[in-house]
Amino acid sequence: MPRKSLLTVPLDASKSQTLQDQLALGLKKRIQSGALAAGEPLPSSRELATELGIARNTVIAAYDRLIGEGYLEARPRSGLFVVEGLCTRPAPLAGGAASKPVRSAAIRPNRLAGEIPFRQGRPDVRLFPIESWARTHSRLLRTQGRSLLSYLPARMLGLPALQESLARYLRESRGVHCRAGQIAITSGSQQALYLLAHVLAGPGTRSLIEDPGYGLARRAFESTPTALVSVPIDLQGAVVPADLKPTAAVYLTPSRQFPTGVSMPVARRMQWIGFAARTKAWIIEDDYDSEFRYGHAPLPSLQSLDPNGRVIYVGTMSKILFPALRIGYAVLPEELIADFSAIREAVDDHGPVLDQLTLSEFITTGDFYRHVKRCRKAYAERQEAFLTAARSERLPLDFPHTDGGMNLTGLFTNGINDADASRALLEAGIDVPPLSRYASKAKPNGLMFGFSAHSPTVIRAGLRRVAEVLASLG
Amino acid sequence: MPRKSLLTVPLDASKSQTLQDQLALGLKKRIQSGALAAGEPLPSSRELATELGIARNTVIAAYDRLIGEGYLEARPRSGLFVVEGLCTRPAPLAGGAASKPVRSAAIRPNRLAGEIPFRQGRPDVRLFPIESWARTHSRLLRTQGRSLLSYLPARMLGLPALQESLARYLRESRGVHCRAGQIAITSGSQQALYLLAHVLAGPGTRSLIEDPGYGLARRAFESTPTALVSVPIDLQGAVVPADLKPTAAVYLTPSRQFPTGVSMPVARRMQWIGFAARTKAWIIEDDYDSEFRYGHAPLPSLQSLDPNGRVIYVGTMSKILFPALRIGYAVLPEELIADFSAIREAVDDHGPVLDQLTLSEFITTGDFYRHVKRCRKAYAERQEAFLTAARSERLPLDFPHTDGGMNLTGLFTNGINDADASRALLEAGIDVPPLSRYASKAKPNGLMFGFSAHSPTVIRAGLRRVAEVLASLG
Repeated sequence: MPRKSLLTVPLDASKSQTLQDQLALGLKKRIQSGALAAGEPLPSSRELATELGIARNTVIAAYDRLIGEGYLEARPRSGLFVVEGLCTRPAPLAGGAASKPVRSAAIRPNRLAGEIPFRQGRPDVRLFPIESWARTHSRLLRTQGRSLLSYLPARMLGLPALQESLARYLRESRGVHCRAGQIAITSGSQQALYLLAHVLAGPGTRSLIEDPGYGLARRAFESTPTALVSVPIDLQGAVVPADLKPTAAVYLTPSRQFPTGVSMPVARRMQWIGFAARTKAWIIEDDYDSEFRYGHAPLPSLQSLDPNGRVIYVGTMSKILFPALRIGYAVLPEELIADFSAIREAVDDHGPVLDQLTLSEFITTGDFYRHVKRCRKAYAERQEAFLTAARSERLPLDFPHTDGGMNLTGLFTNGINDADASRALLEAGIDVPPLSRYASKAKPNGLMFGFSAHSPTVIRAGLRRVAEVLASLG
Repeated sequence: MPRKSLLTVPLDASKSQTLQDQLALGLKKRIQSGALAAGEPLPSSRELATELGIARNTVIAAYDRLIGEGYLEARPRSGLFVVEGLCTRPAPLAGGAASKPVRSAAIRPNRLAGEIPFRQGRPDVRLFPIESWARTHSRLLRTQGRSLLSYLPARMLGLPALQESLARYLRESRGVHCRAGQIAITSGSQQALYLLAHVLAGPGTRSLIEDPGYGLARRAFESTPTALVSVPIDLQGAVVPADLKPTAAVYLTPSRQFPTGVSMPVARRMQWIGFAARTKAWIIEDDYDSEFRYGHAPLPSLQSLDPNGRVIYVGTMSKILFPALRIGYAVLPEELIADFSAIREAVDDHGPVLDQLTLSEFITTGDFYRHVKRCRKAYAERQEAFLTAARSERLPLDFPHTDGGMNLTGLFTNGINDADASRALLEAGIDVPPLSRYASKAKPNGLMFGFSAHSPTVIRAGLRRVAEVLASLG
């Protein structure tokens, strides 16, 4: 433990900065200067609080900030560490070396490797057929490269080849009604949500959002002038409002409500479709991981059920393939295409082209389908392993929604507060966000576990640790 | 020459469609059906006109349209060809083949190949060392792939390896003061402009923008509530306002003012630095193509001159490497990092990771520097060829700023209206935007020519055509 170096962080209660700010800043400086080196472990919050003579919450808050800013990371069963490969101070400039390339000591893909249990929404990238992807990418670049290096024509929504293969995939797998030209390729589904919020939610409008719900969807709408109204979640998913006030946009996750995991039955879906027709609302259907459903066939997408064409289907490759690809998409109703592309042009014009062609080829060769099938099988086993272990560890959590996806949401069956539990678990190297973090007015109390990225062995070991920590709190 | 297939295009002068429309449509259909195959050469306009018994201008116009729509491409010294890998009709959907992949006949990168003279800001992608890029990408994916497939940690500004190699490059080549951690990697420089506008330009603020100026920078600011004030351009670039009202942001292109091409002398730069210090303004320095300067060494970047740290340096790889890469960057002052990353998270979280590592490696191996050098040499020759041809064709245009870049801006020396000229030239297959298109209050009258993507032969032929069209207007 590098206690000495930490104890040299000077804290002064009389300063205008809070102790937490001083501690966070002091640690950051020591990391930046290299005094606290990459990979070095940090003392537990309890230890450091005792040694510095400050409140433990102050240390926890400072640590949390540095985790958020990417300076520290929690490792399972080991505690907190300084992240590998951080930027330290720039080396002094070599005089006159203007055009001489300097080979850096090592490429640093750092901070990407390894997944902490049970981070939500993470695919197991070890299953990804990386060789086949690399081969495809390389072949396309060599055979068609030159024609792929230029800008896409102004306001084109995506590479036509990918629009076509995605349209076919969405028609076949999710019954989505679309022609290729309606598919906008975005930088992750997050960009689709951001752009749609800005297309739909102008001044003087109201928009509805699930509560608890997906934080970054809320953030996208909060960046518009719309009045954002929380919609509560019951056992059938998002509850349709009784009033029929004009509504600009509704954000829904019908396949698997985020974060509760509720799957919306068809009757409730039809109510939302009726609501949209009567209020002239556009519904954004965020179908982020419906590919992974175990046992039952997936429910039809909301978009496929809507005879009025008021549903905008949004999906992502982050969960099916790999997150770093940053390819998402939105199936745009014809009348929204012009506004969407105009805003897109100002935001970033368009995304990288080569990956779009690689993905298209990946779909048309069938590699894509084989990969989804392989993942579905592995994740089903992992879910099973998770639920079995959760039972045998007698976790004080109830997992009511287990029909699919990459996460399992547990509701506390005893009085434990989810934020306290989550914090204690993070210190033990386990990242399970509290449901309350996703809530605005709602008061859910539970934890969200991602199981898809971990082998059954890691899952069992992880849940044993969860049981220990929760027992110490209970 | 596939004359037979072309001669089967049925033309009928009595139809309501013009002959040009009929010819363009007929050719397009033959290409779509595969009757005119990828890579096939077309007869010259003179030959085809003779054989079809129609005016040569009709053929030229039809060809030009198909070039514009991406069906045909001009190859230097060889003539026109059907573009490789075009969309042919999508195969009909196989019924019930839900999970069976359909291999499409061909990948369709269409409409990306071929560049129309004299589109501005286009690098010559034929010079790009595509083999080396493909090899690097493939090697990194194979050796470090798994660790590169996950999300970047929350709010990380870019892949640290790329931040470091870019920081080194910017310090060496442009004297930019930065540490690696300040560099945000964006989806083209456009995303940097959009995000910065939203970070800086809140309600009740004023922001300054060059007039005439870069349209998409203006669009980025127009998407904020700021009051946007036009700054006129004189022979030293953007004119510093006399008033010292509080200012949120200033958008400048000091290296080469867009679109006039004026290079801002150091004295004017220092005035802007003083203005920013006094008004607490942040200056966005968009340094989009300063790598290409012929003859003289580039002027120091505004950022490197500013002792107060109020300049945000923005750059792009679209001009140096290739546009479809969609990698731009901003060097963020420390105090803006938190706000920038918060907005970025809502906009699209982060960009694709593999290309960032490939680019970083490309820089550290020196391939990057060799490529820039090769392009600089080629573009210098092309600029020379352009100016020589412009003189010998006696164009009614004056090109006052010729020290670098990828474009040459011509000001009319006779009374021709730039919008009329641009329209007439576009009909003749030449894309040169009028300066008035970039103006809000200003009244410039000229045309903007991109020369970098074309061989001297294409440049000479293109300018001959420009001279003909302008003569017909004059």
